[in-house]
Amino acid sequence: MMRTIKLLIEYDGTNYLGWQVQPKGSTLQGVLEEKLSTLTGEKIDLLGSGRTDAGVHALGQVAHFKTKSQLDVQTIQRALNSLLPSDILIQKVEEVDEGFHARRSSKSKVYEYRVLNRHLRSVFHRGYAWHIPQTLNIREMKKATRSLMGEHDFSSFQSVGSPKKTEIEANGFLKQMVRAIVGTLIEVGKGKINSDQFQKILDSRDRKKAGPTAPAHGLFLKEVKY
Amino acid sequence: MMRTIKLLIEYDGTNYLGWQVQPKGSTLQGVLEEKLSTLTGEKIDLLGSGRTDAGVHALGQVAHFKTKSQLDVQTIQRALNSLLPSDILIQKVEEVDEGFHARRSSKSKVYEYRVLNRHLRSVFHRGYAWHIPQTLNIREMKKATRSLMGEHDFSSFQSVGSPKKTEIEANGFLKQMVRAIVGTLIEVGKGKINSDQFQKILDSRDRKKAGPTAPAHGLFLKEVKY
Repeated sequence: MMRTIKLLIEYDGTNYLGWQVQPKGSTLQGVLEEKLSTLTGEKIDLLGSGRTDAGVHALGQVAHFKTKSQLDVQTIQRALNSLLPSDILIQKVEEVDEGFHARRSSKSKVYEYRVLNRHLRSVFHRGYAWHIPQTLNIREMKKATRSLMGEHDFSSFQSVGSPKKTEIEANGFLKQMVRAIVGTLIEVGKGKINSDQFQKILDSRDRKKAGPTAPAHGLFLKEVKY
Repeated sequence: MMRTIKLLIEYDGTNYLGWQVQPKGSTLQGVLEEKLSTLTGEKIDLLGSGRTDAGVHALGQVAHFKTKSQLDVQTIQRALNSLLPSDILIQKVEEVDEGFHARRSSKSKVYEYRVLNRHLRSVFHRGYAWHIPQTLNIREMKKATRSLMGEHDFSSFQSVGSPKKTEIEANGFLKQMVRAIVGTLIEVGKGKINSDQFQKILDSRDRKKAGPTAPAHGLFLKEVKY
């Protein structure tokens, strides 16, 4: 009997060309499919909730696969975690209804973007936050984020020690949209545009007017909601 | 005129064979001396407060060097930080009295050891905490650390989110002493020895009786006091 298995996955995207299998180079989907195939003895196709770009991290990516294997979910989790490299971790394995689809069943996604806003760079945050040495106008940035309410649920900056974390939740993301929003928001923080201009740029949906795309290494796919 | 310059240094020790120059392989002292020599045009000898083992990190290592260079301290810091790789950072540069000696002038050192105590390993803490999947008896471990008071100033476990951090301060550390203490303390947490036995092992100063040495990647040289 065919079973549908859902995986909750954490990964450090530093050394991967992104989620989706590429003709050349290491990808998260590729490594996971290889280990799942080893484990089950079947050719496994793993479907993620969506792609993450090269260098983007995940605290809670979701994916599913179909298998005839009768291994229980605890065994799948333990065996996968021992086969996977140290930069990929299976947080949870669940057997779900055959109709479950990691991408199509998802209601929304939560991304977290980390900015290290201080003069000096940091050795320990270097792969996991965008370093902005200039002083940022946080008040104007918060004002700008208010225009994101509506289709997006955009919580204002949380200053939890350092680095600062911004969360964006939405029910559909265009390619690199989060990084474009963050990049434009940083332009607000630097005083290059104001919060009204930020809103107009977003309304116009014109990427040419947006700020530079924020780098991949500050972005974390935090949660996929179903 | 010869000046004495003091550096406050942060580093990720993952990719180094430790502080001290070795015949082969990359070391922190080696990389720093090379960049200082490039910067000043002199052959620079850099003296650290002490060695750190291969893989050990630093939040606040201190070192000093002598130079005839007239570069101001801000310029030295900025230039060094642009020359250094991303896993080494100069936090502060100061001109000090010619009698200052990073090792001999130091009064005590503070080390922090990070333990990730949960069932699953972690992708993001993997290089910076010792993963202990078994439940630890924190109460017995705290009891054991009380016997360290005196020559050591050993603060009890701080549960600041995860991972847990233990700090040890002392005015003289033997090679791998902190890692031996932590390794033995974890044996207490696992119930293999009790707090009285812990004290006896430390009193006996017999490394053969101590627990396995805790791995280098959980250890941070936090502060050198003068």
